[in-house]
Amino acid sequence: MKLFKKVAIVGVGLIGGSLGLAIKNKGIANKVIGIGHRRKSIDEAIRRKTIDVGSLELSSIKDADLVILCAPVGEILKILPKLSQFINLNCLVIDVGSTKSEIMKLAQKSKVKFIGCHPLAGMEKKGVENAKRGIFRDSLCLLVPLKNTAKGDLKKIQRFWKILGARTKLIDASSHDRILAFTSHLPHAVVFSLLDCIRPDYLPYGSSGLKDTTRIGLSDPYLWRDIFLTNRKELLFTIKNFKKSLTHLELLVKNNQPKKTAVYLQKAGSKRNEFPDKA
Amino acid sequence: MKLFKKVAIVGVGLIGGSLGLAIKNKGIANKVIGIGHRRKSIDEAIRRKTIDVGSLELSSIKDADLVILCAPVGEILKILPKLSQFINLNCLVIDVGSTKSEIMKLAQKSKVKFIGCHPLAGMEKKGVENAKRGIFRDSLCLLVPLKNTAKGDLKKIQRFWKILGARTKLIDASSHDRILAFTSHLPHAVVFSLLDCIRPDYLPYGSSGLKDTTRIGLSDPYLWRDIFLTNRKELLFTIKNFKKSLTHLELLVKNNQPKKTAVYLQKAGSKRNEFPDKA
Repeated sequence: MKLFKKVAIVGVGLIGGSLGLAIKNKGIANKVIGIGHRRKSIDEAIRRKTIDVGSLELSSIKDADLVILCAPVGEILKILPKLSQFINLNCLVIDVGSTKSEIMKLAQKSKVKFIGCHPLAGMEKKGVENAKRGIFRDSLCLLVPLKNTAKGDLKKIQRFWKILGARTKLIDASSHDRILAFTSHLPHAVVFSLLDCIRPDYLPYGSSGLKDTTRIGLSDPYLWRDIFLTNRKELLFTIKNFKKSLTHLELLVKNNQPKKTAVYLQKAGSKRNEFPDKA
Repeated sequence: MKLFKKVAIVGVGLIGGSLGLAIKNKGIANKVIGIGHRRKSIDEAIRRKTIDVGSLELSSIKDADLVILCAPVGEILKILPKLSQFINLNCLVIDVGSTKSEIMKLAQKSKVKFIGCHPLAGMEKKGVENAKRGIFRDSLCLLVPLKNTAKGDLKKIQRFWKILGARTKLIDASSHDRILAFTSHLPHAVVFSLLDCIRPDYLPYGSSGLKDTTRIGLSDPYLWRDIFLTNRKELLFTIKNFKKSLTHLELLVKNNQPKKTAVYLQKAGSKRNEFPDKA
């Protein structure tokens, strides 16, 4: 028996499209329906076999037993309160948003069986044309249940991600937003600021190091605007911390301190080896 | 006829070793000698055929017609004044250091035929064990001549880099240090500071974006200490500019300005497409 009868993916871009491909590839559902804003994207999603059928109407989620919200966080916050009028009581709803506190606050008030999800498997590219079914393989997916989430529902969603190849880890919304502010939102803010301050005519002098460092600057600005603004408090906290670290280094350089500068760089750089996968 | 009779590489690490391999591969010299601090590195460099013979003594450069200084900038500044006592009048000397003003100032005072070089072709790995003959292919090499550099000598060095596959571009030392401060030294300072401010137990939550962004944090801390301290004025100027850009974004987020935040991110991010090679 399939894990779900009908999965509805709301927002068929990079992540939504990749989920559709992976769900179909793993035989997780009998049917995958995609809901989007624009006819063109929906047609493209069907053409690429990421979804079986498409719709421009949110009401099309009505007989799904799993709804996956794959829109930018700002959109998710608009869609969430509308869901209960369309879906039946047993339908599970998950999302893939990069911030969790505002979404979980709204979900707690809603009447839907919601489990917040954050697969750490994005990339700087966007759109269904870049969707790949393998992007969740060997990735980490963070799960944020509601206070009243039933154990069976949580297990079903854990099973869902496991079939797609992802490890899952439970976390509360505020820890999620604190940690991800440091490991994802701050790096994006720093890279956008770095690009902002470099004169365009200097860019041709950039080597592979600058290219790699600023790759995430190619990320969708609207997606990231939403992430920044729905995690304002934590992002501002990380920027404060980052500025302290930068000012520390700045002073070592200003005061021409070779030993202390080397220690700072050695200590900070060694953290790069702490990543689970050495890349 | 070979371009050089005997090339001496002082410092046989990643860049020195790669130069040795490339020089031998392209048949640029009859003989390549490597000079290093440690017997072990020299033996390894010979074993990997990056050099023909090795020595621990700087005096071994004596009958070379090209000397390439491949040590960290701090070392280059110590070695430069010693060269004239060993080499003959017609020997050309080049370096591969990442900052140029201090080196060129010293070279101007020395009695050697020096042309500053900066191949934008490094990577975060170090040591002769990572040397690859192809790293200069399709790269840009910046050349900084002295006031009295002879045209013929400059042409010979341009030819040298061209044979290795690099484009060359003439630049003065202060423009070099200003531009590279933005495109290379600042990004390194920012990445080291970013790593400094992230709690170690948060690192396992880092995804591929953070990994790419912080790859240059794996760079040799002593090499970068030298780069930062020999380009202090320009690096401090870029940090000031960067802080302004970051504070601008910080205020947009603090004041919850969706439109202006999106414009900022869109404008900054679009610069990432300006790189000559889209990666």
